[in-house]
Amino acid sequence: MPVPIITLTTDFGLNDGYVAAIKGVILSRMASVTIVDLCHNIGPQDIDQAAWVVKNTFIYFPAGSIHVIVVDPGVGSDRAIVGLSAHGHCFLAPDNGVLSSVIENGADAYLAQRPDLYQSPLSHTFHGRDIFAPLAAHLAAGNPIESIGPKVTLDQLQRLSFPSATVNLSTRQITGCVIRIDHFGNLITNISASDLQQLEPDLTKTSIDVGPISLTSWCAHYSDVAPGQPLILINSSNFVEIAVNHGHAAKKLGAKIHTPIVLSVCEKHNYSL
Amino acid sequence: MPVPIITLTTDFGLNDGYVAAIKGVILSRMASVTIVDLCHNIGPQDIDQAAWVVKNTFIYFPAGSIHVIVVDPGVGSDRAIVGLSAHGHCFLAPDNGVLSSVIENGADAYLAQRPDLYQSPLSHTFHGRDIFAPLAAHLAAGNPIESIGPKVTLDQLQRLSFPSATVNLSTRQITGCVIRIDHFGNLITNISASDLQQLEPDLTKTSIDVGPISLTSWCAHYSDVAPGQPLILINSSNFVEIAVNHGHAAKKLGAKIHTPIVLSVCEKHNYSL
Amino acid sequence: MPVPIITLTTDFGLNDGYVAAIKGVILSRMASVTIVDLCHNIGPQDIDQAAWVVKNTFIYFPAGSIHVIVVDPGVGSDRAIVGLSAHGHCFLAPDNGVLSSVIENGADAYLAQRPDLYQSPLSHTFHGRDIFAPLAAHLAAGNPIESIGPKVTLDQLQRLSFPSATVNLSTRQITGCVIRIDHFGNLITNISASDLQQLEPDLTKTSIDVGPISLTSWCAHYSDVAPGQPLILINSSNFVEIAVNHGHAAKKLGAKIHTPIVLSVCEKHNYSL
Repeated sequence: MPVPIITLTTDFGLNDGYVAAIKGVILSRMASVTIVDLCHNIGPQDIDQAAWVVKNTFIYFPAGSIHVIVVDPGVGSDRAIVGLSAHGHCFLAPDNGVLSSVIENGADAYLAQRPDLYQSPLSHTFHGRDIFAPLAAHLAAGNPIESIGPKVTLDQLQRLSFPSATVNLSTRQITGCVIRIDHFGNLITNISASDLQQLEPDLTKTSIDVGPISLTSWCAHYSDVAPGQPLILINSSNFVEIAVNHGHAAKKLGAKIHTPIVLSVCEKHNYSL
Repeated sequence: MPVPIITLTTDFGLNDGYVAAIKGVILSRMASVTIVDLCHNIGPQDIDQAAWVVKNTFIYFPAGSIHVIVVDPGVGSDRAIVGLSAHGHCFLAPDNGVLSSVIENGADAYLAQRPDLYQSPLSHTFHGRDIFAPLAAHLAAGNPIESIGPKVTLDQLQRLSFPSATVNLSTRQITGCVIRIDHFGNLITNISASDLQQLEPDLTKTSIDVGPISLTSWCAHYSDVAPGQPLILINSSNFVEIAVNHGHAAKKLGAKIHTPIVLSVCEKHNYSL
Repeated sequence: MPVPIITLTTDFGLNDGYVAAIKGVILSRMASVTIVDLCHNIGPQDIDQAAWVVKNTFIYFPAGSIHVIVVDPGVGSDRAIVGLSAHGHCFLAPDNGVLSSVIENGADAYLAQRPDLYQSPLSHTFHGRDIFAPLAAHLAAGNPIESIGPKVTLDQLQRLSFPSATVNLSTRQITGCVIRIDHFGNLITNISASDLQQLEPDLTKTSIDVGPISLTSWCAHYSDVAPGQPLILINSSNFVEIAVNHGHAAKKLGAKIHTPIVLSVCEKHNYSL
């Protein structure tokens, strides 16, 4: 039997011993496990960001992996803790919507109710260590997800309303926004490749407005334009991304999370910038 | 036999290959070992911070774990390197007081004197790689702590004098300070739950002054107050902690490490802020 | 057979799920592998920095380790991907010069041409996940480096021209520069211990100019001078390093990457600063 994999996603950062405490509890209960840091630099309490990062990353892990997400502004309150089986993976997270994308195509959901497993004494403020870690070790030991508590229907779970892109076939525009700015400053939008396909498969006929700046330089990769120049591409998760070769698009274009992005079909190009 | 666990705590940060070099040396000598990053973002030469983080985290690892702490301003000088057996765990650290809290309740201490084990050539400035990593691998291989060198008594070791909280039963006050500001900006004080118990078990009768600001909002968890509001709680390590729901208490309250914290028993509450 | 080791060096930072996606792909293909983060905080597109960090770190890992370097400004373009066998280790990197130092003393080089192994669909912008991770898993499974593609000669590979130090025996000077500033602010120069040996083995007869500041305080370790004072030492990688005890040399001395460093043999010392 292969060694079980547990991934951890938190907003704990790396300046304290909090992430290590979670790992210590897991290893105390289940010695043979591979723990992978998915991301610990989620912005404090930024459930949207955690949802995005988890959704776009978990799929690269082997089926059967256990993904623990501890971005949990309501820690200690009466918010539930949910365990999911979806896409062949398991998930443990607060019921705060962080798994909204994961359950879109169906999932089996359970509410964690296993105080017999939790750390004792049980803190009010560190459920990552005291509840999530024990549950993850329990699943890694081969116990089925059903064993964590009662089944619930998906409509009983909290959902996030992510801003979604709108395809307007009459105006021949897609209206979306910046949904994520990555380490390189690349602007990841919520306009998907299939949105584009629906509007206009020939990208060379389209332009993109980021605020007052209009871009038409669709590329296959970053180095297709000169250093310092902006470009548009379909990224490795199949979303429209705006980048600057060897540069930081967010700074250069003055864009932030939620900056509107408008894609238009145009007759002729107006190369700008 | 379970795979041995080695945790690493350093002030090396993550921008260089220094931490990886330590891991490489360990893995070169002991292939089957689980290495866990406890924390590498200890402030440069900040022995107090390392002591705090290690003390509050190691207890969550399985007994028998080996904890290596390389926060070592005196690297290469005649400061000793100490190995400890305490609380069922092993520790390796420079003899600079970083283990003061660990030895409070007793320990067996040994001075490392095993140049036959060290990397060759032996540098003057990177003992984490050249001495600590070989010693950790040596212990992980099952060698007893006694094998690293001569036993010493605990009073031969360097100690830190941590600022401690003072309980004054006549004035009905506890005087302490901020001892740690975590990633979320939470103010962790050196006032313990047992200090409180000694003064006044009913927390609703107490207030806390952070500089000129008086707080009385004792809570069980962060979301008990509105976003942006301050609160006081007993944290997951059993110390008084001052937080701001969805906010950064250190910034909001203008507090720093060593900012005085005064807890008073009061007749009636003066809700402020 | 020991568990194979894969190290990862990228400029991806730790704010996204990119590094985790690479690990997920590796673990999906090769369950029993030890993955070590060599460094993920390489400056964006900073091939020089990656080359330096990898060169000075890989040697501490066991022979047979697989080192993956994804600092890849040309990702998706027609730049090749190269696999190396050198010093008993394996390396996978874009052919952009990042391995220049590794191949200095000889290597066997191969161009990766195994689309049958790559992730499908294959992105244009994330070859770390889609090409490097599959190749690393392939090597970790025990396949020889020759199996990744055709052999090439070393002169077919891209090289970086690192600024090198010049030893001038007639003026009795060595002219070099700052090549790396580490987490502590230490200035690591490209002047090696063997350069010094060639010019003047007695270091007490030499001084070092960092811009207008002249230093003569050669030390064995950082704590040889008072806190806040600068010092010079031969570091743990055998290069001249300029540090400030308990301080940040780069800030104190106003030095940056490429700041000139001039070492001179002098008759008498001019202690300054």
